[in-house]
Amino acid sequence: MPPTTAAAHGPGPARASLPIGVFDSGVGGLTVLRAIRARLPHESTLYLGDTARVPYGTKSPASVLRYAEQATDHLIRRGVKLLVVACNTASALSIGPLRARFAPLPVIGVVEPGADAAVAASRLQRHVVLATESTVRQHAYARAIHARVPHADVTEVACSLFVALAEEGWTEGPVAEAVARQYLGGLAASPAAGRPDSIVLGCTHFPLLHGAIRSVVGEGPSIVDSATTTAAVVAAELDRLGLGRTMEGRPGHALLATDGAERFAAVGSRFLAEPLAASDIEVVDL
Amino acid sequence: MPPTTAAAHGPGPARASLPIGVFDSGVGGLTVLRAIRARLPHESTLYLGDTARVPYGTKSPASVLRYAEQATDHLIRRGVKLLVVACNTASALSIGPLRARFAPLPVIGVVEPGADAAVAASRLQRHVVLATESTVRQHAYARAIHARVPHADVTEVACSLFVALAEEGWTEGPVAEAVARQYLGGLAASPAAGRPDSIVLGCTHFPLLHGAIRSVVGEGPSIVDSATTTAAVVAAELDRLGLGRTMEGRPGHALLATDGAERFAAVGSRFLAEPLAASDIEVVDL
Repeated sequence: MPPTTAAAHGPGPARASLPIGVFDSGVGGLTVLRAIRARLPHESTLYLGDTARVPYGTKSPASVLRYAEQATDHLIRRGVKLLVVACNTASALSIGPLRARFAPLPVIGVVEPGADAAVAASRLQRHVVLATESTVRQHAYARAIHARVPHADVTEVACSLFVALAEEGWTEGPVAEAVARQYLGGLAASPAAGRPDSIVLGCTHFPLLHGAIRSVVGEGPSIVDSATTTAAVVAAELDRLGLGRTMEGRPGHALLATDGAERFAAVGSRFLAEPLAASDIEVVDL
Repeated sequence: MPPTTAAAHGPGPARASLPIGVFDSGVGGLTVLRAIRARLPHESTLYLGDTARVPYGTKSPASVLRYAEQATDHLIRRGVKLLVVACNTASALSIGPLRARFAPLPVIGVVEPGADAAVAASRLQRHVVLATESTVRQHAYARAIHARVPHADVTEVACSLFVALAEEGWTEGPVAEAVARQYLGGLAASPAAGRPDSIVLGCTHFPLLHGAIRSVVGEGPSIVDSATTTAAVVAAELDRLGLGRTMEGRPGHALLATDGAERFAAVGSRFLAEPLAASDIEVVDL
């Protein structure tokens, strides 16, 4: 497919007709894609999951940035009007460099919308953020929440195993609950006065474990994720830039992966909440 | 470092002085490296863990083969006299092509030695093989065991989550046991007449979960892994080829990884059972 940079960077209907690009380390970002499709049903989308190198959450910052640049480059060559970095780890590590390098492409991450959702859902501003090792090490959510509410109390917990559980499809039952208890049991047992009222799911894999997390933290705290607020930010940004799709006809949706179409379809259908066949996925090399 | 292909493929003391190359998808193969160092304390070793692309067990066969070829190419350029593919997934998928492409380099995988160990440890020849998704899908162990004992009864179980548990360091306690019970509980509950007497750890990560696996399967079956038998095969092969190191002086050991020296050191020290610092690891790009 030839580069469509002119259309992507120019004004007018040609650019507005391009799809929204969504990039993730694997299938987890499909929860964000699903929210975007629900919020903007008339928009086309182009999703790229870097399944050859998933997971990002335990890789070094330099590698994650390089992978994000390669993915963005690929999506720009295909033609997208806006990029959503649906992976929390990549959002935490690469949003600034991606905006600088690929300007004027609008680039939206999931950490800032996630922080918006957390602050809005919390009365006490006592947050616990569940995320990957890399996102926690960057303190991405703590910084984003403190930028909004300087006195907020933010505890970050690295929950690497939740990623593997979601990929394995073990999202409820004794194993999921045992893992959630191991990560969050201390929290639930802490004195009531210090308990959080907001649990932030800082990784796109984690919404699938909502039930197991709820069973450990009890009914008290809100459990918030980035998907819905990210979709709202995408809608607002398209509106601001006059880039909403106005063409008639059905929007198009395409899914790309860097490895394993069959596994992407099998695992991805859980995240997208619709059936997928291996033939729906195009495998690309970055 | 310049290519040392001439030394690697030539006869005589120059070649014998080269290290044994060990390649794995990450840190799991350090259990095999440890067995090789114990069996052959006078030999030098050069270990390469492809931590930028770990895990292999859920990736496509074509990608795993490509990664294995790149790793082998790198180790040959550094200079090795023999290659051990310490990753079960890569062994299952790439041993034949690697031998053909890199002849006359001797290439030893872990599946065949693992099958030797299983057959030797079993009286009833009723085996349960625990491995990654890819290794199970290849039926690598079933084929290797049947080649030795045609009437053997072999059940293969994909245990992807064991990899994440071992990497997280949760190798004992309630979570490890809940995961082991989920994978193996049905087995332990089956009628005594059909129960296996051999549990084969068909992934180099799994020896760390020995205790949790034992707690579910009970005292009956043997639990076998590839590390010790692989080291024995390496010793025999060096002997057969006259490639044992005869130089005086202490052997050298080097560790390479494709990403994340700090994480490699932290996680790898559990597998190698000796302390490692990030400065002990050289990061390379394949």
